[in-house]
Amino acid sequence: MQLQEARSQLSALQAKMFAYRHALGLISYDGATTAPKNTAANRARTLPVLSGEVYRLATGPETVSLLEFLDAHRDELTAKEQRQVFLLLKDLRFMQKIPMDEFLAYRRLLVESDDVWHRAKAADDFASFAPYLEQIFDAKKRFAAYAAPEKDPYDYWLNEYETGLDRRTCDAFFAAVHAGVVPLLKKVLAAPPVSDACLLGDFPEPEQEALAYYLMDLIGLDRGHVGLSTTEHPFTTSLGSHFDTRITTHYYRGNVSYSLFSVVHEGGHALYETGCADDLAYTVLDGGVSMSIHESQSRFYENLIARSLPFVRTIFPKVQELFPQQMAGVTAEDFWKAVNKAQPSLIRTKADELTYCLHVMVRYELEKRLMAGDLAVPDLPAAWNALYKEYLGVDVPDDTRGVLQDSHWGGGMVGYFPSYALGSAYGAQILARMKETVDVDACLARGDLKPINDWNREHIWQYGKLYPPQELLERVLGGPFDPGYYVRYLEEKYTQLYGLR
Amino acid sequence: MQLQEARSQLSALQAKMFAYRHALGLISYDGATTAPKNTAANRARTLPVLSGEVYRLATGPETVSLLEFLDAHRDELTAKEQRQVFLLLKDLRFMQKIPMDEFLAYRRLLVESDDVWHRAKAADDFASFAPYLEQIFDAKKRFAAYAAPEKDPYDYWLNEYETGLDRRTCDAFFAAVHAGVVPLLKKVLAAPPVSDACLLGDFPEPEQEALAYYLMDLIGLDRGHVGLSTTEHPFTTSLGSHFDTRITTHYYRGNVSYSLFSVVHEGGHALYETGCADDLAYTVLDGGVSMSIHESQSRFYENLIARSLPFVRTIFPKVQELFPQQMAGVTAEDFWKAVNKAQPSLIRTKADELTYCLHVMVRYELEKRLMAGDLAVPDLPAAWNALYKEYLGVDVPDDTRGVLQDSHWGGGMVGYFPSYALGSAYGAQILARMKETVDVDACLARGDLKPINDWNREHIWQYGKLYPPQELLERVLGGPFDPGYYVRYLEEKYTQLYGLR
Repeated sequence: MQLQEARSQLSALQAKMFAYRHALGLISYDGATTAPKNTAANRARTLPVLSGEVYRLATGPETVSLLEFLDAHRDELTAKEQRQVFLLLKDLRFMQKIPMDEFLAYRRLLVESDDVWHRAKAADDFASFAPYLEQIFDAKKRFAAYAAPEKDPYDYWLNEYETGLDRRTCDAFFAAVHAGVVPLLKKVLAAPPVSDACLLGDFPEPEQEALAYYLMDLIGLDRGHVGLSTTEHPFTTSLGSHFDTRITTHYYRGNVSYSLFSVVHEGGHALYETGCADDLAYTVLDGGVSMSIHESQSRFYENLIARSLPFVRTIFPKVQELFPQQMAGVTAEDFWKAVNKAQPSLIRTKADELTYCLHVMVRYELEKRLMAGDLAVPDLPAAWNALYKEYLGVDVPDDTRGVLQDSHWGGGMVGYFPSYALGSAYGAQILARMKETVDVDACLARGDLKPINDWNREHIWQYGKLYPPQELLERVLGGPFDPGYYVRYLEEKYTQLYGLR
Repeated sequence: MQLQEARSQLSALQAKMFAYRHALGLISYDGATTAPKNTAANRARTLPVLSGEVYRLATGPETVSLLEFLDAHRDELTAKEQRQVFLLLKDLRFMQKIPMDEFLAYRRLLVESDDVWHRAKAADDFASFAPYLEQIFDAKKRFAAYAAPEKDPYDYWLNEYETGLDRRTCDAFFAAVHAGVVPLLKKVLAAPPVSDACLLGDFPEPEQEALAYYLMDLIGLDRGHVGLSTTEHPFTTSLGSHFDTRITTHYYRGNVSYSLFSVVHEGGHALYETGCADDLAYTVLDGGVSMSIHESQSRFYENLIARSLPFVRTIFPKVQELFPQQMAGVTAEDFWKAVNKAQPSLIRTKADELTYCLHVMVRYELEKRLMAGDLAVPDLPAAWNALYKEYLGVDVPDDTRGVLQDSHWGGGMVGYFPSYALGSAYGAQILARMKETVDVDACLARGDLKPINDWNREHIWQYGKLYPPQELLERVLGGPFDPGYYVRYLEEKYTQLYGLR
């Protein structure tokens, strides 16, 4: 094979993969947004055909010889091509190590499991879900043993979601956060409470939607390439490339803040995706590099930006304009306090910025124990409830609002939760770094996010998956990651908000 | 090859094709409904990859030998399998006769042409579109010559859209309709005019949407399998199988009737699609058999059902409930007259039931002449305007409202227009046949469409593409098609409506 021909085959292979991912992604997105409700079985016939073809493209003999040829000539490739070959070979090696029948059985298990989880959650019936969870954790252990027999299986999966991550780094990170947040929360709960009454009331959907579009424009999303729909649970997805990105939200008529911050959170993901350099499109380097870096952007915009006082002051006139009666007598400062009220609670996705990481910590501890064999699935609900009591001081009334609340484990996502907390902490240090050259508060006060977005694009977004996440992060931060930034950010914010001393 | 194995390969081949068609259909549907506006280039990268795979599935050497093997054993196949093999071989033979480079060039031409047409229509610039139209008509002639050198090229394409159709049958059909409609229209225009003022005013979208869902339920669509979205031009599409069908509408705030009848029209298509026998799903026999039969159902529900007096009486209380101010002082009979007002006009898709077929006739005449070489593309606008004057008595003020109004020719659909008029005429005879055993007016008066739908399902819908359209039609009608039913239906209706003598 000639190198030049191999390079163009590499490019054609990736373009083809992205066409299939476009179709697969759109079918899922359609299922969550627009599809009539009894059409899941129809999609279930199409998905395996298309994902089977992606599998064939990724692992077929032509691909194997192409990638091996290119790997042997790696010194003659550009940095981008080297990284493409590396990532494609990484997937290939993993797939080669997992027996095909076990892999297919696992895919079927996940489809069933997701369905059982939905019903178990609705019926508060953990027992019906437990056998699936056991099989999923079993598969996770087995696959890790196939892929990296020398590694602890939980370390293997942590590293899969965030290269370089293991229990040691997670333990140290969560210990630092725990040490900072728990005493801070104690002080907050002892202070005079903040009211969030102005967020609750009657907020019709058309006005909430108008607010969502206003926010999309304000944070700098290009609506020619980023769409907004509604779903039960908000998410972001790119279809075929970063040129077509969709965010979703959910409007609760009784609460104005849920959709507001969902849109900014998902908007942060979408800014990251669409900010990727255009020449990475239709290659495996397109889009965000890891979940932690992705969350560092989504939670950056949601919390560090949108829950800040200058940003709230900027958007509050729009909120008042859309909801004049509901906001009568409310000031921007009241609204700012309301959207930052800290209150231990049961549901992670509705938690405030301060207690959020405690929710994540519960999940981290439990999946660590499950993967180590120190905890059996039938004992999981009791362990969950005990940790909620210990970390958050709340009593879990049922499994629906307890261990069944998240879809992750039932979807095979084990080792994923830490990225939420890590992302928040990365974001705080990124903000500190950004503030060395950008007057962030002044930008927010005048409602001009361009300097902020330009900084993130220059340092993070444009690179897609070109650098491993930890390398990218160190480049951005100009040094190692330090959770102290996050703890200090929370301390300063909540001290000001609650008038602590 | 063993027959049993070949049969299961036949089934697997079709299932796979439907997975790809699901993806392709959804990507187009998404582009028309939900996708952000600057994402067409992204879709344009995915579509050729997937349609290339459909082409490979339909024409690859494995498929060729499979179909030839099955065709040689056709006596051992079930009737359904025989028909599947016949339809798959028909497509295969066509594709084998067209040189691949010409076919691909034609596909690219259509993508460009559609774009040019949109811009030409907006700018009233026929000249920019003319070269594309010339190339399209050229390709249609060439392809017909490749596929059936013994046939007249226009006859070839008429037969493609409706097996058995040719210029001779079309000429006779349109002559009969012309002879009936033109004098009837003259009488109508001489009678005291009917007012459609109650349809015009301010009709907010949420109420129009509520009316759309009410109508979907009333006509018996299963919303678990049929979705509703909005697009510039209403259409119906099934994704992957008849189990997932989507209709679209367009709400004009100033006009309550456009969406109302669009929803019933597209609903008729969707009833036909979703009424297909479930065991035909994931085979080439799924869904409607031809455009004429499809239009016989859509226009049946739109006109024969929904514009009838008993149906209007049934829905009018709902219209009044949703639009109490707009409908103050209006009776069901006023509303019925308004939605049936006959008035020669410029735009086919907004034409009334009586003048509609004259719009189709203009297009039939022109494409016949273009295909025969009796008319050159540059002379098309003048010929269009002359026929509008002759058939409808209207002066066409510009090409935007004239020859550029429809997307069909620019999309390569030549020989398609007659199906609209044929479908209307089939519908009238189907209704007469149905009335032999179903008291249609009584059903409509009590808002119960089940007996009507059951009849259509039993006689038409369930068969999918199992029978050729003309054979299906003769089975339904219990004899040959006779356009006299259509003419008499129009005469009776408009005589009553306008009080003619």
